[in-house]
Amino acid sequence: MNGHGSHSLRLKRVGIDTYQEAVVYMHRDCHVCRSEGFAAQSRVLLRCNGVELIATLNVVESSIVSPGEAGLSESAWRKFGARDGELLEVEPMPLIESLARVRGKLYGERLSDADLRAIVEDIAAGRYADIQLAAFVSACAGGRLDREEIVGLTRAMIDSGDRLAWPRGEKIADKHCVGGLPGNRTTLIVVPILAAAGLTMPKTSSRAITSPAGTADTMETLAPVDLDLASIRRVVEREGGCIVWGGAVGLSPADDALIRVERPLDLDSGAQLVASVISKKVAAGSTHAIIDIPVGPTAKVRSPAAARALGETLEHVAARVGLLAKIIVTDGTQPVGRGIGPALEARDVLQVLRGERAAPADLRERALALAGALLEHLAAAPFDKGILRARQILDSGAAWRKFEAICEAQGGLRELPHAAHTRPWPAAYGGTVISIDNRSLARAGKLAGAPRDPGAGIDLHVRLGARIARGEPLFTLHADSPGELDYALAYVKAHPMLIHVERDS
Amino acid sequence: MNGHGSHSLRLKRVGIDTYQEAVVYMHRDCHVCRSEGFAAQSRVLLRCNGVELIATLNVVESSIVSPGEAGLSESAWRKFGARDGELLEVEPMPLIESLARVRGKLYGERLSDADLRAIVEDIAAGRYADIQLAAFVSACAGGRLDREEIVGLTRAMIDSGDRLAWPRGEKIADKHCVGGLPGNRTTLIVVPILAAAGLTMPKTSSRAITSPAGTADTMETLAPVDLDLASIRRVVEREGGCIVWGGAVGLSPADDALIRVERPLDLDSGAQLVASVISKKVAAGSTHAIIDIPVGPTAKVRSPAAARALGETLEHVAARVGLLAKIIVTDGTQPVGRGIGPALEARDVLQVLRGERAAPADLRERALALAGALLEHLAAAPFDKGILRARQILDSGAAWRKFEAICEAQGGLRELPHAAHTRPWPAAYGGTVISIDNRSLARAGKLAGAPRDPGAGIDLHVRLGARIARGEPLFTLHADSPGELDYALAYVKAHPMLIHVERDS
Repeated sequence: MNGHGSHSLRLKRVGIDTYQEAVVYMHRDCHVCRSEGFAAQSRVLLRCNGVELIATLNVVESSIVSPGEAGLSESAWRKFGARDGELLEVEPMPLIESLARVRGKLYGERLSDADLRAIVEDIAAGRYADIQLAAFVSACAGGRLDREEIVGLTRAMIDSGDRLAWPRGEKIADKHCVGGLPGNRTTLIVVPILAAAGLTMPKTSSRAITSPAGTADTMETLAPVDLDLASIRRVVEREGGCIVWGGAVGLSPADDALIRVERPLDLDSGAQLVASVISKKVAAGSTHAIIDIPVGPTAKVRSPAAARALGETLEHVAARVGLLAKIIVTDGTQPVGRGIGPALEARDVLQVLRGERAAPADLRERALALAGALLEHLAAAPFDKGILRARQILDSGAAWRKFEAICEAQGGLRELPHAAHTRPWPAAYGGTVISIDNRSLARAGKLAGAPRDPGAGIDLHVRLGARIARGEPLFTLHADSPGELDYALAYVKAHPMLIHVERDS
Repeated sequence: MNGHGSHSLRLKRVGIDTYQEAVVYMHRDCHVCRSEGFAAQSRVLLRCNGVELIATLNVVESSIVSPGEAGLSESAWRKFGARDGELLEVEPMPLIESLARVRGKLYGERLSDADLRAIVEDIAAGRYADIQLAAFVSACAGGRLDREEIVGLTRAMIDSGDRLAWPRGEKIADKHCVGGLPGNRTTLIVVPILAAAGLTMPKTSSRAITSPAGTADTMETLAPVDLDLASIRRVVEREGGCIVWGGAVGLSPADDALIRVERPLDLDSGAQLVASVISKKVAAGSTHAIIDIPVGPTAKVRSPAAARALGETLEHVAARVGLLAKIIVTDGTQPVGRGIGPALEARDVLQVLRGERAAPADLRERALALAGALLEHLAAAPFDKGILRARQILDSGAAWRKFEAICEAQGGLRELPHAAHTRPWPAAYGGTVISIDNRSLARAGKLAGAPRDPGAGIDLHVRLGARIARGEPLFTLHADSPGELDYALAYVKAHPMLIHVERDS
C-alpha cells in the first residue's frame, strides 16, 4: 500500500534486549520508511496478532534486517507472541493530544479529571515515550498536584486497568508501607497472620522502585509472584491470602509505566505515591488498609510533620475512592531486620515465622504491631487486643503453616538463592553505633546487584546503640559478580559515615 | 581484566541509527556484562581513540555481535571515528551526583551557581540519559527558575563550551527572534545588510526545536552551515558576517542536548530559552544584540505583558554576562512571508535580497526595521536613520552581493531543493481571512516533513484581511512522500479553523 495508512513487513527475530522499551528495527531502504518519511527515533504504531503497541524506530543500515523485514526488541517480540516470518503492520503514530495537558501542567495550569483520565489512558496504552513519561512524572513532583488532582489521578489509574472483585459486603484487608526503610518486610508476616485469623487479604505488592528490594522481589525468592487474576482468586479462595506482584495483573498499568521511569530518575513524588498506593489497593478490591509511614532522618519521610501531611492526604484520597485507610507512623531511624536485598530479607522473614531464636526482634515486633492494628481496623479484635491476638497466631505456628500453604498455592516454596561472593566490612575502630544512613546502605545494596540479583545485598550485623570492637564486621556485602562486589566496596569506602561509630573516649 | 574497572571488546559495525542517542550493543554472554552485572538499559562509560562517551546498553541474544564484540549506534560510531576491529573500553557509569540537585529542584529547592555548573557540565559531557534531560527541562519549565538561577544557568552554559573571540574593543553585532512565527527568516537579510555596512556579525543560528524550520535549516538549503571555529573565523574575517549552525561548533553543547529533548516534548521553557539565547550570543563573542519578540494569540509569546516580562529578563540576564541587548516587540498575528519550511522560506529570502517584484513585502519591511534598529544600537547610524541606511544597502544590491559572497565563503551557493509532491488546499467558501493559526500551520508543515525534508512545508497564498473566492487555494502543501502529504492533509482537514475565513454575508 502506498501513502498514508498501514504497511506490512515480515518479522525477523533480531534478539536485542532493550528492557521494557519497545523498539522496531526497519531498514533505511524499506518502503514503509520511504513512503511515510520515518526516521530514527520516529514513534510508530505496530499491529501483530491482534495486539497494538507503540514503538520507537531504529533505522538499520546493515544486513540485520532486509528492506522487507522488521526486527523487534525482545520485550515487544514477547508482547506480540511473535514468530519469524509473521506480518507486522506499521502505521504513523497518531498525535497524542493529552501531551498538551502535561505541558499545561508544567506551565502551572491545573489538570481536570478529564485531563488526568486522558493522560493516564494514553500512558496505560503505551503511547508515551520515556521522555514524555519523565516530563509527566516531573510535572507532578514536588507537591504540584493539589488534593483534587490527586483524587482525579487516583480515579483515572483505577479505571485504566483490571480490577479484582470479591464477594459483596466482605471486608478485604490490605497493608502498605511507604518505604524508604531497608529490610522492612513485614507484609510477608502480616498476611499469613491475618489469613490464619480467617480474614481475607489478597496482597498485591510492587517491585523495588529506588530500593534494593520490593516486597514482590523478596516474596519471589520464596514462591512465584507473577500470578494472573484467575490464579490469585484461586489462591485467595483456598488460603484467604496471597502475596503477588501487582504488575503482573495490570491492576494499574499506567502506574507500572511511571514506575519504570521513576526508577532511573530516583524520583518518587508525593502525589504519584498517593495515587499509586491508593489506586492499587482499590483495584485489588480492598476495603480496609493500614498504611505504615516510617519516619527518620534518612527514611523517605523525614519528619513527623511530613508524615502527618502525607498521612492526611492518603486518608483523604482513600476515603474519596471508597477505601478506609488507617495511618501508622513508625520509627524509621534504621533498617528493620538484618538483611537488605531480596533473599537476605526473606531469610529474616522465615526466621520470624518459624520462631527461630536468631529471628530479628525488631522485624517481629513491628509485624505484630501492624497485624494487630489491622485486626482492630477490621473489627476482628477488640480495641487494644489486636497485638495479643496476632502474637498468639504467630507463636502457635499457625502463621508459618499459613505462609507455607500460601507459597504452595502460589506455585511452591522455593530454596533461597545465595550470592557467590561475600565480603565483611570491619569497623575501623571500637566504639558505639550512633547513626545508620538508610539511603547510603540502600545504594550500596543496589550497587552490589540487588534487586536484579536476588541473592545480592547487605547483611547488617549492628543496630543503633550497639558497642563494637575494632575489626569486628559492621556488615557483610553479598554480590553475584566480583565487579559488583568491588563497585559496592568502592562506594562503601567513599562513604565512611554510612554507619557512624562514635569512638570510645 | 576481572572485577571493577575497564574491559576491552572488539568493535563491529552493526549499522543501527538511533539518531543522537548513544547505544552500545553487547552480547548477553560477554565477559564484561557478566563480571560487571550489566543489563539492558545500563548506562556505561565507553572509551575509544581517546574519546569518552556515555552510552545506553542494549543486550544482544543473537549473532549480531559475538561475546567478544561490541556494536555501536551510528552516531556513537561517528563520534569515536571508529573502525571495525578496534578496541572499545567499557566501564561502569560513575554516579552522577548532580542528579540529586535536579531532584531537589523538582521538590522546590533553589539551584545555586555551583549546582547549575555541575548539572550543565554533566549534560555537556553526555552523562545524562534522555529521561534525565527531560526531568531537568521539566524542572525548569513554567517559571520555576528565578532570575539569579537563570543568570547562573546562562553562565554555566557559556563556560561549558567553546567560545569565539574577536579583536578587543570591536563591536560584534547579533540578532535573535524568540520564534513562534512561521517563515520569520529576517536573519538571512539582516546579516548581509550589516556586513555590507562594514560591521561584524558572526551569526550562529539554531535548527528548529518545535517549528518546521530554524534559521540554520533554512540557510542550509542555500549553503553549508556546519562550519568549524576556524572556518567561521575565516569567513567573518573575509566578509564581515556569516550564518552558521551553532550546534556544529559546540558553543553551548549542554543547550544542544537539552534542545534534543525539548523537541519531542514540544516544550520550550522561558528560563531555558533565556539561558539558551544569551549563552550562545556571549559564546559567539557578541557585544550588541537586537532581540525580536513577536506577539500574537498563536505566537510563542501571546500578550504584550508577557513580551515585556520576557524582554526584561532577557535584558537583565544579558547585562549580567556582558551583552547589551535591545528588545523589539513585533506583530505576531500571522506568518511572515509566504513559505513555511526550509526551502520555501529560503525562496522568500532570495526574492527580498534580489529585489524581485514577487518578494513578500512583510518579510522585507520587518528585516529592514530590525537591521535599522541594529545599526542604531551599534551607533552605525544616527537615531531614527537606521532603517533608511538599511533600505539603501538592500535596494542598491549591496546586501544581495554580500549574501552571495558569504554563501561562497561558507562553501558555495546551492540550488534550492523542491518537494516531489504538492497539493493546493482550496477555500470551502468565499469570504475574508480573519485569523491564521501559526501553531497549527507549523504543525501541518512538520507533518508534511519539514524540517527533515528541506523542500517540504507550506506555501501560504493569503494574509489577514485578504478576500478569497470559493475554490481559490488558501495554501499549497509540499511533501517528499505521498504518506507525508496525506498525513498533513488529514491534519488540515481535521482543523478547519487553521485559516479562518469569514463568509460573505
